[in-house]
Amino acid sequence: MYEVELKVRADHERVRSRLDDSNADRVGTVVQEDTYYDAPDRDFAETDEALRVREERDDGVTTCLTYKGPLVEAESKTREEAETAVADSDGLADILSGLGYEPAATVRKERTRYHVRGYTVSLDTVEGLGEFVEVETETESDVETARNGARDVMDSLGVDPDEQIRTSYLGLLLAAE
Amino acid sequence: MYEVELKVRADHERVRSRLDDSNADRVGTVVQEDTYYDAPDRDFAETDEALRVREERDDGVTTCLTYKGPLVEAESKTREEAETAVADSDGLADILSGLGYEPAATVRKERTRYHVRGYTVSLDTVEGLGEFVEVETETESDVETARNGARDVMDSLGVDPDEQIRTSYLGLLLAAE
Repeated sequence: MYEVELKVRADHERVRSRLDDSNADRVGTVVQEDTYYDAPDRDFAETDEALRVREERDDGVTTCLTYKGPLVEAESKTREEAETAVADSDGLADILSGLGYEPAATVRKERTRYHVRGYTVSLDTVEGLGEFVEVETETESDVETARNGARDVMDSLGVDPDEQIRTSYLGLLLAAE
Repeated sequence: MYEVELKVRADHERVRSRLDDSNADRVGTVVQEDTYYDAPDRDFAETDEALRVREERDDGVTTCLTYKGPLVEAESKTREEAETAVADSDGLADILSGLGYEPAATVRKERTRYHVRGYTVSLDTVEGLGEFVEVETETESDVETARNGARDVMDSLGVDPDEQIRTSYLGLLLAAE
C-alpha cells in the first residue's frame, strides 16, 4: 500500500468555507500526538524512514504504530507504510525501549478530517507551526493517478498544489528549533 | 513487571487428574503459534533477549507482540517482559520487516490453562517436543516469594520442581533440529 499525500500551508477559514459549499463529508476533529523514534541500528534521517507512535484522542484514545519506508515517488511524497493499532501504549513504549528505540521528537496537532471524492482532506493546526491543509489517499499501485487526483482536490479548495511542502511536520519542527 | 516461570516435562494425564481433584479453575484451551524474530543490530541469542509475535486462537484470533529482556534471576527464569495486543498482524509483520527484523523460528503448541492460587498452570503440547507443565505468575518486585509459590504449586500437582527445564521451547526446538 502506498500513501499519496500533498500538503500546503493554508489559512483554514477560506478552505473550510469551500469544503462547506462542496459535497465534502466532515468526519470529525481529533488531537494527535505523534512520537517519532530513533533506531538503534541506523539513522532514520539518513535512510529516509520513520517509526511513529500516534496517540489519537476523540471520545477515546487509540494508539497506532507506523513504519514509513523511504520515498518511492518524490513528487507527491509517496512511501510505503505499514501500520497497526495497539492495545497497550505503555507496553508498546516498553517494547520499543527494550529493543533500543528512543523517543526523538513529538508533534502535536489538531486535525479536522473531511472526505472528498475518495480523498481525505485534513485541516491541521500544528503546535509551533501553524495551519496546513493535507490531501491524502492510499493506492496499491497507481501512484500517478492518485497524485493527479489529489492535485485536483487541492485546486477545487482554492489551494495551489504547486505550493506543496515536502518536509514533514517533524522536519519542519526540527528545522524551527 | 517480572514474569516468574517454572517448566518441567510431565505427562498430562496424571497432572490433569490432580488439577481436577483440587480447586483448580480450568480457563480453556488455545492454540498458540509463536514467531521469534532476529534483530538487525544484535544477536538475541547472545544478549538473551527475544522478540515474539504470538497468534492465539480459540474462538477468534488475537495477536500479541512481546519483548523479553535478559534474565534477572536465573533460578526461575525471571525476566522483564513488555507486551501489547495488536489489531493487525499483517501490518505488524510489515513494520517488523521494514525495521529489519526477520522471522527466525516458529513454535506451535496447544495450551490448556488453569488458575491455581494466583498462579497460571499450563498443560502444553508442543509440536515436535511433547508434553510440558508450566507454572507462571507475574510480580512487580518479590521474585523470591513468587518463585517459592510456583514450586509449591508444582509439588501439589505431583511434579518435581527440581526437574525444571530452563531452556525455552524455542531453544529446545533449535537444539532438536
